[in-house]
Amino acid sequence: MWDEEQIEQYLKANLKPKRYQHSLGVRDTAGKLANRYGADEKKARLAGLIHDCAKCMSDSDLISIANENGINIDEVLEETPNLLHGVVACVIAKDKMGINDTDILSAVAYHTTGRPNMTILEKIIYLADYIEPMRDFPGVDDIRQEAEKSLDKALLHSFNSTIRHVLNKGQLLHLNTIKGRNYLISQYK
Amino acid sequence: MWDEEQIEQYLKANLKPKRYQHSLGVRDTAGKLANRYGADEKKARLAGLIHDCAKCMSDSDLISIANENGINIDEVLEETPNLLHGVVACVIAKDKMGINDTDILSAVAYHTTGRPNMTILEKIIYLADYIEPMRDFPGVDDIRQEAEKSLDKALLHSFNSTIRHVLNKGQLLHLNTIKGRNYLISQYK
Repeated sequence: MWDEEQIEQYLKANLKPKRYQHSLGVRDTAGKLANRYGADEKKARLAGLIHDCAKCMSDSDLISIANENGINIDEVLEETPNLLHGVVACVIAKDKMGINDTDILSAVAYHTTGRPNMTILEKIIYLADYIEPMRDFPGVDDIRQEAEKSLDKALLHSFNSTIRHVLNKGQLLHLNTIKGRNYLISQYK
Repeated sequence: MWDEEQIEQYLKANLKPKRYQHSLGVRDTAGKLANRYGADEKKARLAGLIHDCAKCMSDSDLISIANENGINIDEVLEETPNLLHGVVACVIAKDKMGINDTDILSAVAYHTTGRPNMTILEKIIYLADYIEPMRDFPGVDDIRQEAEKSLDKALLHSFNSTIRHVLNKGQLLHLNTIKGRNYLISQYK
């Protein structure tokens, strides 16, 4: 397995500078959330660091890596290949970086869409990606405050915010995001 | 098959007065949309008239009629049984009113959630339900104006508006609504 220096070198070489800084922000925020909610801090920091390692790939590279690895490309992913950067990052983490921890891999894979019944590490990475210090959008401070009180409520807020953003941009909604949101709401009823 | 008078008597007996007036509004708006977009006006008016015939039933009645008729109750319908009033109206239309026209029946069945690849009559009833003259919510006039120019664009606008409304109320989003919206957007790309 690559050590942290090898991983950081890979990220510096393959990400734009801002994206690299964002990755460090997600690493740190994920570590804090793991501490707060009793998850494994080391795993959270590593998952946060690598979650966007495929973010700067071209759509065609994302699609061919997905195809080579038997990843199902549904209609939404076909129209919005960038959403594949989570599952493709999971492939890179496994095949290039030698990371085999399934907690870390699933957190990386599902950080783009979410899904129903998420693991605690999946929730932490999804949320850390949303609220790390460089993020700046209307409402982000509310979610940051909620993240200190309830992981699930902050996650639900993030899902709602994502869905509104996708609606405003006229893009396709991935069904895993909707199912993830529905699942959380059903849990609290 | 019941004649219009029998149907109106049934609706008067089973709907609250406002809901009955809404049904007449949907009937008239659906007829106009059918005229505008080359669909069958008579079918549109009949589907519009009866679309909410199960709207004032209790949740438990909706669930038992759905169960008796082999209708799949997914997780969202389980949490929000009122969404069943479309498919249950379809059962009443068939079994009580003797309506067998599949265009009319599917338009009644899918008026609550929409779905991908809707028929023209399904689109007309979904939209008429949204914009009939008694409807009064922010943005309804924009959708009314769009409905004069493009059935699909007005329908997409209605889906977006429904999804935002459900988000604001913290309710579950039915996947058919999301899939219906995604389908329309994909068609225009």
